[in-house]
Amino acid sequence: MSFNLDRREVLTAGAIGVLGTGVQAARLAPSISKAGFAAVVKAMQAVVGADWVFADPDSLHPYTKSYVPDPHHAHAPVGAVCPETVEQVQALLKIANQYKQPLWPVSTGKNMGYGMTTAATPGQMILDLKRMNRILEVDPDLGTALIEPGVTYQQLSDYLAENNIPLWIDVPTIGPIASPVGNTLDRGVGYTPYGDHLTFQCGMEVVLPNGEILRTGMGSIKGTNAWQAFKYGYGPVHDGLFTQSNFGVVTKMGLWLMPKPPAYKPFMIRHPEMGDVGKIVETMRPLRVASLIPNVNLMMSAAYQLAMFNRRSDVWSGEGSISDEAVKKAAKANGLGMWNTYFALYGTEQSIAAIEPIVRGAIGASGGEVLTEAEMSGNPWFHHHATLMRGGLSLEEIGLVRWKGNGGGLAWFAPVAAAKGSETVGQTALAKEILGKYGFDYTAAYAIGWRELHHIIALLYDKSDPAEELKADQCYREMVVRFGEKGWASYRTGVPSMALVSQQYGQVNRDFNKTLKHAIDPNHIIAPGKSGIV
Amino acid sequence: MSFNLDRREVLTAGAIGVLGTGVQAARLAPSISKAGFAAVVKAMQAVVGADWVFADPDSLHPYTKSYVPDPHHAHAPVGAVCPETVEQVQALLKIANQYKQPLWPVSTGKNMGYGMTTAATPGQMILDLKRMNRILEVDPDLGTALIEPGVTYQQLSDYLAENNIPLWIDVPTIGPIASPVGNTLDRGVGYTPYGDHLTFQCGMEVVLPNGEILRTGMGSIKGTNAWQAFKYGYGPVHDGLFTQSNFGVVTKMGLWLMPKPPAYKPFMIRHPEMGDVGKIVETMRPLRVASLIPNVNLMMSAAYQLAMFNRRSDVWSGEGSISDEAVKKAAKANGLGMWNTYFALYGTEQSIAAIEPIVRGAIGASGGEVLTEAEMSGNPWFHHHATLMRGGLSLEEIGLVRWKGNGGGLAWFAPVAAAKGSETVGQTALAKEILGKYGFDYTAAYAIGWRELHHIIALLYDKSDPAEELKADQCYREMVVRFGEKGWASYRTGVPSMALVSQQYGQVNRDFNKTLKHAIDPNHIIAPGKSGIV
Repeated sequence: MSFNLDRREVLTAGAIGVLGTGVQAARLAPSISKAGFAAVVKAMQAVVGADWVFADPDSLHPYTKSYVPDPHHAHAPVGAVCPETVEQVQALLKIANQYKQPLWPVSTGKNMGYGMTTAATPGQMILDLKRMNRILEVDPDLGTALIEPGVTYQQLSDYLAENNIPLWIDVPTIGPIASPVGNTLDRGVGYTPYGDHLTFQCGMEVVLPNGEILRTGMGSIKGTNAWQAFKYGYGPVHDGLFTQSNFGVVTKMGLWLMPKPPAYKPFMIRHPEMGDVGKIVETMRPLRVASLIPNVNLMMSAAYQLAMFNRRSDVWSGEGSISDEAVKKAAKANGLGMWNTYFALYGTEQSIAAIEPIVRGAIGASGGEVLTEAEMSGNPWFHHHATLMRGGLSLEEIGLVRWKGNGGGLAWFAPVAAAKGSETVGQTALAKEILGKYGFDYTAAYAIGWRELHHIIALLYDKSDPAEELKADQCYREMVVRFGEKGWASYRTGVPSMALVSQQYGQVNRDFNKTLKHAIDPNHIIAPGKSGIV
Repeated sequence: MSFNLDRREVLTAGAIGVLGTGVQAARLAPSISKAGFAAVVKAMQAVVGADWVFADPDSLHPYTKSYVPDPHHAHAPVGAVCPETVEQVQALLKIANQYKQPLWPVSTGKNMGYGMTTAATPGQMILDLKRMNRILEVDPDLGTALIEPGVTYQQLSDYLAENNIPLWIDVPTIGPIASPVGNTLDRGVGYTPYGDHLTFQCGMEVVLPNGEILRTGMGSIKGTNAWQAFKYGYGPVHDGLFTQSNFGVVTKMGLWLMPKPPAYKPFMIRHPEMGDVGKIVETMRPLRVASLIPNVNLMMSAAYQLAMFNRRSDVWSGEGSISDEAVKKAAKANGLGMWNTYFALYGTEQSIAAIEPIVRGAIGASGGEVLTEAEMSGNPWFHHHATLMRGGLSLEEIGLVRWKGNGGGLAWFAPVAAAKGSETVGQTALAKEILGKYGFDYTAAYAIGWRELHHIIALLYDKSDPAEELKADQCYREMVVRFGEKGWASYRTGVPSMALVSQQYGQVNRDFNKTLKHAIDPNHIIAPGKSGIV
């Protein structure tokens, strides 16, 4: 078993597999018997049709795919069910309440590196919302959209293009297959000035565990046209409560879309040394805090960038972590420094021309080389970021999971700090030390969101090797714990480490969430264990 | 009694005054006896000292001052208590729980037009946090601050000036005496690009009804330096839950401060006719949605502006509402049109020069006159908005309460709509009709926040005339109901109308809040009736 079991996990540990002879035969939740589970499956089939309930190992197989370390096979679901309507979601929650069968909602379930369609605790069924994939409204004047959870970024992008609507989307990595609803609910971020997805979310429809439909903000007002225009409504703001949590099933979400600017200019800054990490932040922070640069400043380490388009064996055959020297050599051959920072300016030719000299002046003083399309044309990494920073779609970062071979292992570790250079120096040193201890590589980036840094460390390993999977699990947990000791806690984590990370946010926080959970979901049927909330 | 009583209010209606012979003798809460209240006062005196508990009519008098209509004297508190520390707040909540004495927290209690230090239901004690007025931290590099509830905008502004910190604050009207914490918790807004105060809030400390101290976001992480840098932390986001609600007592709040830009240029657009209201919104929305204009676009009606610096009798002696003709004449004499829209550009001389022609071109096409300091130097209204839009402090809008005489009556009615011209045409017509029916004036503004409109109607009346106070109460309620029928619900309202407005947000919303309230505050001791949550 993994570390950090809570009581429910311990209770579950004794349960036996029920799905036949598969190696990954999953354990039922402690709240339900084998007969109860069979009754759930039958009742759900009556709601969505037999074709949309998956409870045998073969049909369930796609739902067990995960890139995060799961050495003890504790996270695969026992079933999956795919509703097509809000009424079906209500009916499924009723069944779940009746039989105490936990349901783990996913939108499209493509959060590679965080757990895909696997759950925090054993015995859950995936409530897969991919069939609810309608774009309900786009208002070109207001720059707003209302969509269902199964809508992908690709689908929304195509809709805008087909209807000649001059609005941009803001994508996370692997945008084409990801869902704006799912990404926002997990508090994902993107690359344009609209990159903080929760800030640019406006209005939700949530099916509560009791089956009632809550609309947030202005959504409950009869005849309103402001549901996607005004975030807050009246009284307490509920939207944040439904992110990274398990208090309801979000079935519709509004979001704001950025008007396509007349001009867009992407930049890259090249710094030659790993040790430059501190001064880059000190240089960029004032530009970012003052909104002179309006989008996230993404500081990519060369090793992360190499891992997108290369196999590790192409650049390193030594023992242990790849050396800085090997990275530097390969980076140089590809036009990269050891840190390559991407940002963009948006506006008109004139407004960009007014800002660019200020930005160039500040960066030049820090020893960074400022590069643009003029110098970097054809460079695949420049092209990649130039695409993302205008909301363009790319699957290129999927390449990361093949760095160590075809085994496909990836876990994101994402500790947060204030945007200060001293933080990056300390974090990079600590990450390299811990990763090095286990023989993994420091393939990482920093994102200066606004006033904060997200350190985004891709723990890349070969999941087809059980020993390496176990090591990856141990390495990840050591990073969580030791970063936490320095005050650096994660903003997001994969299903195996949710309880561990939530503990770092303290007992009062956990107790408060527990109080909310029990009041809103007294049978604890929605996603127990999500963000450590049972 | 007022309309829309809920069960608790009805129970209370039979209670008798206990504070002696004063005309405004207040009723105790239904949960507490006269002896219980006396014990509360004694116990609270032991916590904060006898000088900081107010429970007799004379010493309580300042807490009964209110500008909103309260024709049935239902909102004055029965006492007030002023803690100086978080530990004292915890001790006071313990006493409140023990004796079931409701407490209505205020920061500085200066929300003129929404209720000041009066409460939604009878029998509450004001938990007055004005003594907790420390500026705990300002980080000049990150542009962040951590403050207590009693800190005023004036105090924060003075602190920045005294320490030569080049950061701006963002003020609401009557900023000098108002509290950033109180304003943000009531979801107030200001005039700079940081005007949406909840968006620019980062981290809270909340004393929960059970006395535990919850820190939101990164605040519960030991050793973090990111509490004021990163809003969300991990797991559900709680901050919005503590705004416009009664789930805890906020004792610290972080906020972001805007770096002072090298250049700042305020603008006014003059439109000659009341009927221009629709096309102004259609003209400004694209500029605002695209962030070409980065701050709220405030469309002031001339009557509102005249009321700031004039007595009504100076410009109108006829029957009923002031006529458009009379307003137009007085406006013209003061360099104003019937609608005067204020916004600003921020940046460098070069970046403003790059944007200004685009903005001028769009506005010119709509028939608006674009005016700047060059044309409007010395105009008190231009000066007023030029001050506010750079975060400058002003008490000039207090003048509104003297429009009808010294009686000092003001209630803000603030319905929301999408930022579309058709909405303003319909809202202005409906507001003029209802106000006209009662003989009040249409003294109003529209704020284009981003994608939404706030219509901000100042219901100005003479509170020294009981008949007019009753009429104002009726007029306000009719506006709430009839705007609501068109889908236009309020984003904020005064203590007498909280239950009425909350009903427009539907039963599911009310039930959900009730569930949260009962789970978090089982004795219902914090601000029963706030936003309609008992």
